[in-house]
Amino acid sequence: MVFFNGRFVPAEQAVVSAFDRGFLYGDGLFETLRVMNGVPLRWDAHWRRFALGLQRLDLTVPWLPEYLRANAANLSHHNQLPDALLRLTISRGVGERGYSPRGADAPTFIMSLHPAPVLTAEPKCVKLRTASLRLPVGDWLSGCKTANKLLQVVARAEAEAAGADEALLLNPRDEVTEATSANLFWIEGDTVHTTPLTTGALPGVTRADVLALCRALGVTANETVADLARLCRADGCFLTSSAVGVVAVTELDGAVMSSVPLFTRLHTALLASWREESA
Amino acid sequence: MVFFNGRFVPAEQAVVSAFDRGFLYGDGLFETLRVMNGVPLRWDAHWRRFALGLQRLDLTVPWLPEYLRANAANLSHHNQLPDALLRLTISRGVGERGYSPRGADAPTFIMSLHPAPVLTAEPKCVKLRTASLRLPVGDWLSGCKTANKLLQVVARAEAEAAGADEALLLNPRDEVTEATSANLFWIEGDTVHTTPLTTGALPGVTRADVLALCRALGVTANETVADLARLCRADGCFLTSSAVGVVAVTELDGAVMSSVPLFTRLHTALLASWREESA
Repeated sequence: MVFFNGRFVPAEQAVVSAFDRGFLYGDGLFETLRVMNGVPLRWDAHWRRFALGLQRLDLTVPWLPEYLRANAANLSHHNQLPDALLRLTISRGVGERGYSPRGADAPTFIMSLHPAPVLTAEPKCVKLRTASLRLPVGDWLSGCKTANKLLQVVARAEAEAAGADEALLLNPRDEVTEATSANLFWIEGDTVHTTPLTTGALPGVTRADVLALCRALGVTANETVADLARLCRADGCFLTSSAVGVVAVTELDGAVMSSVPLFTRLHTALLASWREESA
Repeated sequence: MVFFNGRFVPAEQAVVSAFDRGFLYGDGLFETLRVMNGVPLRWDAHWRRFALGLQRLDLTVPWLPEYLRANAANLSHHNQLPDALLRLTISRGVGERGYSPRGADAPTFIMSLHPAPVLTAEPKCVKLRTASLRLPVGDWLSGCKTANKLLQVVARAEAEAAGADEALLLNPRDEVTEATSANLFWIEGDTVHTTPLTTGALPGVTRADVLALCRALGVTANETVADLARLCRADGCFLTSSAVGVVAVTELDGAVMSSVPLFTRLHTALLASWREESA
């Protein structure tokens, strides 16, 4: 079952017009949250980013966030999926032909659940590969999780074709930014670094949580502009996402990267905060 | 009626899964052609660009272009719309959750007809306004007409909110590039200029046709990198699109722009070539 325009329907009945602007232009937004023990984790933080995107795209969700949060929990219950990934999707719906959004005032809104990767005590491992496509930088759309993700799709496909799991995106200034579906961190000595949002990186909810956890654990964490060479020289490199938490990068462009004990420490602390929220 | 995954169906039956990657990520491509007298104009040129995009996104259309061209003509006949706009749309269809295109091997393909703006002897007029968002430059996705058009949607909405009709997009190097749904030309003395594709402008079919018409008419036409100040100083400025041909820019950021006789000359020559093709 999915929550589709205000009703619970079987997933196969969640269909949209081929003239929905989400399908025509990617004219929409989404969020992906982890659900644990029936609780959508970090709902408020995800909603804030979603609401910012809604405002920028001049879209309106015709339900209050608290009503949707309750129905996300209902969805988890109905589907007997206490641990899952929850996707919130909105598109501008059907309008006139062409780019102008005029006349499109009935958005399509969907919440759906998907099997979640199992969480383990140790961070998962990925092989990362630098993408040939560059992430644009400097426009406010990069702060929103829009439905324009072709660059991420193509970069991921390129990485997988080369035997890697995930793609590392640089921006046109040769700065490292993020992976296609995760933020980027690295360690130099005792200091944790992540890329600033000015690189074009998405303001990830788990990115912010890991920065806060570093502070709580007494670990120095900086936002640092870096090129690929600096990343290669780091003592360790990891990714963060709302789906799986901390992920260790074990290979970067074919070169082995070390895992350091701090990865597990941060992963454990993050999982503890999730368990606490879902208890 | 629309041509939907190989069958002619009523438009309201052309529905796609809410998990189609076109809807989730804008993971697809499209083309818009003018149909005149039942003939899809410049089919081969549009198909070449479409085929390039298919190759780059690793997508396959399970029908030959000639079969589709014939069915586009059938569509025009069935719908009693001899003059219309034809949209070809492909998306990667449904796959696994996440950006990886693995497992998505049944694309969604649609051809649909839409009412076309009436063609008049004189070029239409538009008020153009510079967008605050910048068009990214330098990646090969910019050569394809992808379903990632949120920037164009937002730029158009911004222009319309300010009382203009169309948005002018600059790139991060402060170069003028194109409008959201048309290429950009301007005139200095006896010379016609358009932006090179290196600015990020889409390789428009009508753009190429107008460049060829200039040569045929003995008018010098150059690809020229220019900033906004140069465009403002031009003797005239026009747009080109497959939908309406040559469009005169009568206002740029609130300042009046002149129309010059060459606009009408090029528009007339273009319409004559369309009529010849559709005769």
